[in-house]
Amino acid sequence: MVAFSNLYGIILAGGAGTRFWPLSREMSPKQLLKVFGTESLIWQTIKRVLPLISQENIYIVTNSKLAEEIRINLITEKEPFDGVGYLIEPEARNTAPAIGLAAAYLSSIDEDAVMAVLPSDHLIDNADGFVAALSHGAEVARAGYLVTLGLKPTRPETGFGYIKRGPSLDKFSGSHPSFLVERFVEKPDRETAKEYVLSGDYFWNSGMFIFKASTILAEIERLMPRLYDLLIKFKELSLDEWGSERAKAIFSKAEPISIDYGVLEKSDKVAVIPTDLDWNDVGSLIALGDFLENDEWGNAVVGNVIDVESENSIIYGENRLVVTLGLEDMIVIDTHDATLVCQKDRAQDVRKVVDVLKARNANEYLVHRTMYRPWGCYTLLESGPGFKIKIIEIKPGARLSLQMHHHRSEHWVVISGTARVTRGDEIFNVHVNESTFIPPSTIHRLENPGMIPLKIIEVQNGEYLEEDDIMRTEDDYARQ
Amino acid sequence: MVAFSNLYGIILAGGAGTRFWPLSREMSPKQLLKVFGTESLIWQTIKRVLPLISQENIYIVTNSKLAEEIRINLITEKEPFDGVGYLIEPEARNTAPAIGLAAAYLSSIDEDAVMAVLPSDHLIDNADGFVAALSHGAEVARAGYLVTLGLKPTRPETGFGYIKRGPSLDKFSGSHPSFLVERFVEKPDRETAKEYVLSGDYFWNSGMFIFKASTILAEIERLMPRLYDLLIKFKELSLDEWGSERAKAIFSKAEPISIDYGVLEKSDKVAVIPTDLDWNDVGSLIALGDFLENDEWGNAVVGNVIDVESENSIIYGENRLVVTLGLEDMIVIDTHDATLVCQKDRAQDVRKVVDVLKARNANEYLVHRTMYRPWGCYTLLESGPGFKIKIIEIKPGARLSLQMHHHRSEHWVVISGTARVTRGDEIFNVHVNESTFIPPSTIHRLENPGMIPLKIIEVQNGEYLEEDDIMRTEDDYARQ
Repeated sequence: MVAFSNLYGIILAGGAGTRFWPLSREMSPKQLLKVFGTESLIWQTIKRVLPLISQENIYIVTNSKLAEEIRINLITEKEPFDGVGYLIEPEARNTAPAIGLAAAYLSSIDEDAVMAVLPSDHLIDNADGFVAALSHGAEVARAGYLVTLGLKPTRPETGFGYIKRGPSLDKFSGSHPSFLVERFVEKPDRETAKEYVLSGDYFWNSGMFIFKASTILAEIERLMPRLYDLLIKFKELSLDEWGSERAKAIFSKAEPISIDYGVLEKSDKVAVIPTDLDWNDVGSLIALGDFLENDEWGNAVVGNVIDVESENSIIYGENRLVVTLGLEDMIVIDTHDATLVCQKDRAQDVRKVVDVLKARNANEYLVHRTMYRPWGCYTLLESGPGFKIKIIEIKPGARLSLQMHHHRSEHWVVISGTARVTRGDEIFNVHVNESTFIPPSTIHRLENPGMIPLKIIEVQNGEYLEEDDIMRTEDDYARQ
Repeated sequence: MVAFSNLYGIILAGGAGTRFWPLSREMSPKQLLKVFGTESLIWQTIKRVLPLISQENIYIVTNSKLAEEIRINLITEKEPFDGVGYLIEPEARNTAPAIGLAAAYLSSIDEDAVMAVLPSDHLIDNADGFVAALSHGAEVARAGYLVTLGLKPTRPETGFGYIKRGPSLDKFSGSHPSFLVERFVEKPDRETAKEYVLSGDYFWNSGMFIFKASTILAEIERLMPRLYDLLIKFKELSLDEWGSERAKAIFSKAEPISIDYGVLEKSDKVAVIPTDLDWNDVGSLIALGDFLENDEWGNAVVGNVIDVESENSIIYGENRLVVTLGLEDMIVIDTHDATLVCQKDRAQDVRKVVDVLKARNANEYLVHRTMYRPWGCYTLLESGPGFKIKIIEIKPGARLSLQMHHHRSEHWVVISGTARVTRGDEIFNVHVNESTFIPPSTIHRLENPGMIPLKIIEVQNGEYLEEDDIMRTEDDYARQ
């Protein structure tokens, strides 16, 4: 199998995954979670397509806030992906506008472009099966079909939409049969779902699609003409301008509907390739219980947890001690700054809570206490009126940007390793058990010249302590 | 009503209250909790007897570890009690040996001593009723009876022991009738408990007793002669020696049984005074739900909590965000360093978990993150290999002891107020946003000379960071 030169990966990564709070946060959404394996879900998604699509042909569709977080995640994983491109959605308008944008862009750089549209936050255990299906799908797409990957249902699930197959597309050879789609059906009731599973004619709609950019654009022109007009206007903008106010003004007029509803359910060119991928849509915290090993009482337990006689529960502790006693069908998620306790059958409603937090502008909605940066990470230990305390960990050989803050002073105590500190015109080393401080409006840089991680405690003082009080003069990681 | 000169308060405060974990800790037991009102339960207990017993006649019976914590609590409440005495139990051997010790001590200083034995961790809403009952009880005790305060049962409780009244003790006038006790009964089943409530002849055993020291000693001599022999040996020891190895060696031979079982159930001199005190034994975390106001769905909610559609649950957040969704009959207690999630009907089993923690020597068993001291408080923010970070808050005008550590250096950053620092021979002020540090083996002192609380961040570095690496040269609070 070789990579197709005009096959492109379009990874949809604009979602917030609020049903995963408190594991996910606005700035650390589901696709960046590492609880499903040692790498993030979006990393796993890219890794999965690499046998067919080279990094340069992969584009991540996301918003401007998340793009930098995703980029940092991908370049700091053990096997870093630093060649992928980014397409910035001016704002979140569901999948039809997002896929339309990507199609418009691809068709402008490659008129034969075939795009595989993939959610960034699914789990697929059968990676080989996925590659085979994708490869076959690209062939069918090249013939002008809008291809959906259908999943053979393994249970009468009432939470997914189904796709009913129509006549076989015999003309395509290959390991996978393919079919015209007879119709899409919304989430069925349990009895109907059972019939679907038994019939063999229905497949779960995976949200994974393959089509030529030109095909989907032509169908958007036919079925969603107002969206098409907006996409045409985007042709005047360079990629850098997609995050601009002008782009937002155009894009905000797009109707926020899904590609399924806007195009696929109405088009007569839709094909389905049935697959068997050991797939999980990671739709709610329940997925954590599916992914993790369960004990003999059906509990999935992670972290510093003491459990006594619970059953069928998910108990996840990040760091602090969690004690559970006699739980049944419960989810407990304990993070540094927030704890969720919820009945399993209410897992879908977690997003309602997150709406409340968002409305309050609560920090527990926005960010995690620990944030990963290209040079290492920092953890907020405590904040209060006029101060913030962080632990900063810097990888051997790495350094932060040369920077300045207008409103705060920073006190640094080295607790392991050796720091090389630039402060104004001075450069000096600070060793373990030593401390130094940086007055406001002083250019400074923190660097780990050593062979072991450098850990420092930073105490910030000042009247304004937000992350945006930073002027970067020089940065190894090309940040602004 | 006037204080009786030979009435003494014996407050039993050696218990750990492990069923209140994680609100209680070994070094912050239930009697020091402030969740039941603005002052600690032991403070409330003392406050309640003051109309009848002066501070000088009140003795707290506890172990040597807790005595200092209790003393600090009592002298730092808004209305401080600094005149009470302390009787140190050499080790915990249940109530018969503890009460025996107290009786032996009191009889040695006042041969007419009448002792009111009171648990330190109960709630009593009807304080006037309590004082009246205690006053009447003292009169009956003076006549040679072992008086128990019985509580009129308000529900068919199966968790308490009951006392059945016998013939009336007509000879005592006063607002309260009193009766000889016919018998003590163990925790009954529900049907029996219902009969008890209906009969009017049964009362809950409150654990509050009043007797002359000489009466109880005589009964101990008659019914528990081996304990009596041990008590006689204690007469050779001064109060200061009660915590000594010699005292432990004697006391460890005492059988660990309750005064109820050892004496009261066997004696024919036991009387009961029925009372109506709006009493709560604060027996488990359920008591928190009884004490706190409940919302219309039966939830008691405290702290930074977002609850969606829970029922009959206790949700207590100390500081961090807690989100609950669809809970029924649950208890969630979230503290700085540990979270408990438990079915209400398993509340009694919390102590089993604590046994596990104790066996592990877990810090979450031992102490709270925030510890109150006479000069203010400190909170442990983080610790790791070779470092600890604390926030220290010092009251205006207060100061820590003049001290030295052999194994650690301390870095101090002032985040509010002004610090006066003694370091070796120097004395200097450190203002907000400034920092200083204390090398190992350097005499130092931290002081708040100002009008507002002084807050500093302390970063400790070193190879040994336990609290016992402290040599106090001078202390305003007479600590060693």
